[in-house]
Amino acid sequence: MTKPNDLILRAALGQDVERTPVWVMRQAGRVLPEYRAVRAKAGSFKGLLFQPELAAEVTIQPVDLLGVDAAILFSDILVIPEAMGLEYRMDEGRGPSFEQTIRSEADLKKITTNGIEENLEYVFQTIRLIKQELGDRVPLIGFAGAPWTIFCYMVEGKGSKTFSMPRAMIMSNPELAHTLLQAITDATIIYLKAQIREGCQMIQLFDSWAGALNNDSYNTFALPYLKQICEAIQDVPKTVFSLGAFFSLEELSQLPCNTIGLDWHMDPRWARKVVGGEKTLQGNLDPAILYGDYSFIRLRTQEMLQKFGPNRHIANLGHGVYPDIHADKLKCFIDTVKEYQHSK
Amino acid sequence: MTKPNDLILRAALGQDVERTPVWVMRQAGRVLPEYRAVRAKAGSFKGLLFQPELAAEVTIQPVDLLGVDAAILFSDILVIPEAMGLEYRMDEGRGPSFEQTIRSEADLKKITTNGIEENLEYVFQTIRLIKQELGDRVPLIGFAGAPWTIFCYMVEGKGSKTFSMPRAMIMSNPELAHTLLQAITDATIIYLKAQIREGCQMIQLFDSWAGALNNDSYNTFALPYLKQICEAIQDVPKTVFSLGAFFSLEELSQLPCNTIGLDWHMDPRWARKVVGGEKTLQGNLDPAILYGDYSFIRLRTQEMLQKFGPNRHIANLGHGVYPDIHADKLKCFIDTVKEYQHSK
Repeated sequence: MTKPNDLILRAALGQDVERTPVWVMRQAGRVLPEYRAVRAKAGSFKGLLFQPELAAEVTIQPVDLLGVDAAILFSDILVIPEAMGLEYRMDEGRGPSFEQTIRSEADLKKITTNGIEENLEYVFQTIRLIKQELGDRVPLIGFAGAPWTIFCYMVEGKGSKTFSMPRAMIMSNPELAHTLLQAITDATIIYLKAQIREGCQMIQLFDSWAGALNNDSYNTFALPYLKQICEAIQDVPKTVFSLGAFFSLEELSQLPCNTIGLDWHMDPRWARKVVGGEKTLQGNLDPAILYGDYSFIRLRTQEMLQKFGPNRHIANLGHGVYPDIHADKLKCFIDTVKEYQHSK
Repeated sequence: MTKPNDLILRAALGQDVERTPVWVMRQAGRVLPEYRAVRAKAGSFKGLLFQPELAAEVTIQPVDLLGVDAAILFSDILVIPEAMGLEYRMDEGRGPSFEQTIRSEADLKKITTNGIEENLEYVFQTIRLIKQELGDRVPLIGFAGAPWTIFCYMVEGKGSKTFSMPRAMIMSNPELAHTLLQAITDATIIYLKAQIREGCQMIQLFDSWAGALNNDSYNTFALPYLKQICEAIQDVPKTVFSLGAFFSLEELSQLPCNTIGLDWHMDPRWARKVVGGEKTLQGNLDPAILYGDYSFIRLRTQEMLQKFGPNRHIANLGHGVYPDIHADKLKCFIDTVKEYQHSK
């Protein structure tokens, strides 16, 4: 029996590690031909989510095929608004869309925080299947969308360049915005606690639309809810990844979480200076670097590792891997991290 | 005869001003009902571009209707790729798209930097008509897309969340990327010089997709071309607005330009510290604030003015005004700037 690989948990907790651990956002995804085969069998993205055997299979694929130091539950951040009452569609090439949105007090009756666990039972079944097959080989990461990001989808009803509708709501009706954000937060806490109960050993909050705000509005409409979640989740290490939130990095580093995810825009040394020494940093190779040749990928990955240094770092890309990257290029990134020796 | 209002030129040059000047990105646009009427008459967005009388009319509308301190030429950044040989379509609600793209050395034969002035004669005719009608009431701002942003469209062929194709090209074929960026730069210099010859008194470069890069790649593939343009344009004040380029603000402030445009993510005091005292700053109210009520808009505008201080500031939003904002809300922002008294 091989020794469990808990590098990523130790790195998150600031303990000693033999080498920098690595995983990749969207590692269970279209970058792997083996994923695409399972996805084809499932028929659709949501079909894959709702079939726990298949979702478990694609969760484990990158552990076997890429040699990453963690598995991350294959799921979607939008299962929360759906569990609250707003169904969504995911159309190939067009992204998610909701038929119903929340734009007035009256719309609040469309959603509930009751029955969250029952509605998400298919996710928990996926986690149980993953744990059976994965054992202790590597830790399993659970996740959820950050309340601000989920709010964006529930108000706008789809993806957007500017998310002007949710931004309009926080300006014109902050009370309604806070009510909705609180409901999302309550549902998310229930969801994450259940993920941990079923076996997730670490969790990550994805604030994909943090960049639609600025320091003022992020402090008012995003951070307080992240804080509630971080305070409610006590048993496992927590990572917060706020894409584009360079303007609030200092405040993010005050959250009661273990790790701050950095997007590829942020210089690791600048981030370390802003965050201080008490948090682990995760990231942040520009995913477009994987379009380069192998020697270029190795060089840039080594430069990144050097900038972060040997401690309190979990290597990752600075955003999800692009689906048209060749899996061997991604493997080159992962192998470079695993082989890297920090100079003493 | 009224005295010419040259506040904005003086602010750009760092000279004394009686009050902070103000204009608004996309002020000549859908936010004005009067614009929508002319746009309907023109039949389409591109129809409006190609009819100099109508384009001149919508350029001047915000001067009369909103009382801004500058007019900005009504045009589009994509007239440059079109003048170089790549025609584009602008479909309502779907944004621009190009049938032809540049993705290989062979594709370079589709484009040329010959005949730029001839191909853009309709723009120069618009400028002449504007100058006839506008006189010296306020200065006329000319503009162009920054080479990196134009490159994004020519490679990707349409808008994108990640612009992964142009980012792939700079990683996998930097030589081709530099060749294309240089051609765009050459065409842009010809275009801007002609705008100035016809009467534009100030120019702005829009780097709308700066945020798709990071410090490294921005320094290599964007800044050198901005620098060439700023060096080539000597006669009028120059503004560089790089949306999302917080990571390169320090390098941007080294460009031989007069004004740095700030998006709404950047705190004015932080930006002033990074940029230093030698440049005028432009911006940067969050455009979503105009969804709030009048007293909220006034309060936030006053706070912004206070943060920038009385000198070397041109007030603007931190991004183009959203088309669904009520024109009276926009006027409230403009009036608040014009009435504001900095405490001595």
